[in-house]
Amino acid sequence: MLITFEGIESSGKSTLSKKLVEYFKIKNKDVIWNREPGGTELGEKIRELLLGNYKICHVSEALLFAASRAQLIEEIIKPNKDKIIILDRFVDSSIVYQGYARELGWKEVFEINKHALDGIMPDLTIVVDVNVETSFERMKNKNKDRIESEGREFFEKAREGFLKLKEWFPERNIEYISGENTLDVEYNELIAIINKYVNI
Amino acid sequence: MLITFEGIESSGKSTLSKKLVEYFKIKNKDVIWNREPGGTELGEKIRELLLGNYKICHVSEALLFAASRAQLIEEIIKPNKDKIIILDRFVDSSIVYQGYARELGWKEVFEINKHALDGIMPDLTIVVDVNVETSFERMKNKNKDRIESEGREFFEKAREGFLKLKEWFPERNIEYISGENTLDVEYNELIAIINKYVNI
Repeated sequence: MLITFEGIESSGKSTLSKKLVEYFKIKNKDVIWNREPGGTELGEKIRELLLGNYKICHVSEALLFAASRAQLIEEIIKPNKDKIIILDRFVDSSIVYQGYARELGWKEVFEINKHALDGIMPDLTIVVDVNVETSFERMKNKNKDRIESEGREFFEKAREGFLKLKEWFPERNIEYISGENTLDVEYNELIAIINKYVNI
Repeated sequence: MLITFEGIESSGKSTLSKKLVEYFKIKNKDVIWNREPGGTELGEKIRELLLGNYKICHVSEALLFAASRAQLIEEIIKPNKDKIIILDRFVDSSIVYQGYARELGWKEVFEINKHALDGIMPDLTIVVDVNVETSFERMKNKNKDRIESEGREFFEKAREGFLKLKEWFPERNIEYISGENTLDVEYNELIAIINKYVNI
């Protein structure tokens, strides 16, 4: 089972995804966690390129994320198909950031990614939704990477894109959680959703 | 005008491509030379990944070459459209190596690359053809990179792929030169081809 966490920067998705790992461990489930871009030796090198300060055109950016994803799928996801795999970001981040916010077109970016995905799509996607205002407030003392350094307009577009995912993929299991609440409230919401989809 | 040089390792294409630059310079043509993967700051970093010793799955490899290409097109090819651009390797290397020799499918790899190409294709492609035997003999004292370290079977397949290019793209200008001759003979053949296509 593949569960992905998505959302704009500092939405709280990483924290929630790691809390979910603990939850499954307590329930004696075989669970692994990973993140994108990265997760493999090659992927971490690609991550350095993507988050560094190189001049990267939009198509190149989309292709690099897809390359990191292809390696993650081959090295980590396929060999662990019998486990619960939790990912902090996956294909929807590409569809939303490069496809929608960078305006390459969400379908075009999904097409690029199909070569990497090799038929693998999330069984459940949790979008942690926050205001751009909140995201910026949380990032204000952070040493921002190339993507985090984008302006508000970019993240408004990205947030909008994440909210459109359900419309673009009506057949998928996509659930939204507000990232504006306390961790306890968010965690309880998350577990309620998990219990709807996973037989614990 | 975009002229690309293609062929398996140590075919002599780099040498010939650089001789062609000199030829155009003598004729007072505005000419630039570049190579793939690489040619931009990002591209050279991607080159390090591709030719280093990372575990790279075939799809990821194809996507990384395409990412380097997208950046080259954006940074170098589009802004120099009025010049003669000579490239040591371009999209055909991906079509042949990843598509045909690695068996991802030449059409599939071309599809991936269409996103990077943005409509740009070579006006003339020179394939320098050598026996795999010759290629291996020339590489024998070389410190081989990840791709050069592939076995004979891989390069037999790649050579076959380069010879099929004309069949796959009947509408394109693709010319073959034997890389088994002396440089003088090859250079004369090259210039004869160039005079067929370029108004000097």
